[in-house]
This record gives sequence, structure tokens and C-alpha cells, in this order.
Amino acid sequence: MTLFFEDFTPGSFGCFGPCHVSREDIIAFASEFDAQPMHLDEEAANRSLLKGLAGSGWHLCAIASRMSYDGFLHRTAVLGSPGVNEVKWLSPLRPGDDLMLDVDIESSRPSSSRSDCGVVDVVETIRNAAGQTLLSLRMPLTVQRRDRPGVSS
Amino acid sequence: MTLFFEDFTPGSFGCFGPCHVSREDIIAFASEFDAQPMHLDEEAANRSLLKGLAGSGWHLCAIASRMSYDGFLHRTAVLGSPGVNEVKWLSPLRPGDDLMLDVDIESSRPSSSRSDCGVVDVVETIRNAAGQTLLSLRMPLTVQRRDRPGVSS
Repeated sequence: MTLFFEDFTPGSFGCFGPCHVSREDIIAFASEFDAQPMHLDEEAANRSLLKGLAGSGWHLCAIASRMSYDGFLHRTAVLGSPGVNEVKWLSPLRPGDDLMLDVDIESSRPSSSRSDCGVVDVVETIRNAAGQTLLSLRMPLTVQRRDRPGVSS
Repeated sequence: MTLFFEDFTPGSFGCFGPCHVSREDIIAFASEFDAQPMHLDEEAANRSLLKGLAGSGWHLCAIASRMSYDGFLHRTAVLGSPGVNEVKWLSPLRPGDDLMLDVDIESSRPSSSRSDCGVVDVVETIRNAAGQTLLSLRMPLTVQRRDRPGVSS
């Protein structure tokens, strides 16, 4: 692990990707987790508010998770998260989209329950190649401190 | 479609399930979307805060989506959702869990942008067979009215 609490200072943290999403990816996720016709069937999708086949909003969240892991969480001393403060689905996920993930640190603070950790409030945004924002979410991460009592770094 | 805005009155709406989640399900989701060792590897999971292999929190959200579709959304005239107000991951998802979904309607109101629709604020809770709450989330759904101008029901 190379990233600790001290490395997450407020401001822009990084931009990660691209992540390509195919029609097959969209249909596979929706078939298993969100089988609404607008996520599975082109004709039904054309008649929906989405105006064409579009991925599940939960698929976008899962993709944000994947891009976060590949981008920085795989080398972060993160212990977990109690949940998500807010998810906004802003534009449809389309077959063939190449997605980028922007990560901003909104704030960071000592953990109230663990002296060896801090809490980092992360804002994640996914945009497509045209620059449209598809997703934004805010969530706290519990991250170990680099310098912890009794631990040599 | 048999469920419309008028059918979502504040209070308890229903309980749906069970949904069985296997070790293979947990590992398959984590491998694709949240490859943190605590979701993939028993030994790493034993050393983590989760104290044993546990599914991704995003997997729980996707399962809530699936159980909602199977339980009531497949027959609801729902147009979509702008996002999620809050997600709480309260207890770990374990291999072999049989999950139940409780759905409560927090409130409902006319849509400010579409006279043919209303907005329903849904609270969803997932619990395991032991009665532990694993997940809670709050989200608005945009649902068509049964009696819409120009539409015979």
C-alpha cells in the first residue's frame, strides 16, 4: 500500500480511465440486476425517457467502483466505507461509451472511533468522451494513517 | 403495468424475497467491480474489518435493484430515478445469505415537471435470515399516474 490518509488532501485527486462499456456489458449487468426493458431492449428503450438503450444507474455505480479500484484503491490502505451520501444519475450510459473517472477530495478528518485512521470524503464523477457527466457520487472512506501508533511505516 | 403512482401511499409497501447469494456470486461481482481482497480472498478477509469473506457494498445495492424489479418494479409504471439519496452499508453480506427486501414508502408528491407523473420516495432495507440489517437506501422514483390527461386506464 502506498497511499494513506495523509495523501488525501482536499482538492482534485486524479483522473482515471478510460473504461470502455459495450452493449454486451450493459445487457449482462441489466439481465442480472436491473431487468427494466429500457436497459435490455432497443425498442422499449427508444420509447422510454432514455431515448435509446442505456445502462442501469447501478451499473454506473459499479463501474465507478471498478475504476476507483483500478485507479487508486488497489494501493490505498482503505478499511472500508459506511455507505454513500448521494448518487446522481445525470445522463444515460450508452453502448460504446469510453468513461473517465474524476476523483476530488471534498474534506478529510480524523476518525472519531479509530486513532489510527482518518475519514476521507470523496466526490467521484464519471463523464463520457463527449464530456457529459453521467454520474456523481459522494462517499466517505476510512483510510489508515501512514504514521500509526506502534506501526513503523 | 398494474402499479401506478396512486398505489404508492406512505407506509409499509411490501416484503420481497428471499434471494440466495452464493460465494460464487460474491466473488464474481467483486472480480468485475470491486476487487478489494476482503471481497475475494478468505485470508485477507479474515484480517479485515469484515472478519471473513463478505460481498461488496455495491453488490448489495445491485441485489436490492434486482429484488425491487422482481418484487414490484416489473409491474410498475416507473419512468426512472434521478439517483439515490443515501446508502448505508450496515452489516456484511456473507456467502450463503438468504436476503429479504423490505420496501417502505416515505412520502409521495406530484412531479414538479410532469403532470402525468408523481414522485415516490422509497426506503429499501435488506436483511439476512438472522434479521440483521445489511443495507438501507432511500431513493425517489418517478411513476406515472393511473389517471392521466388523455389516457384511458
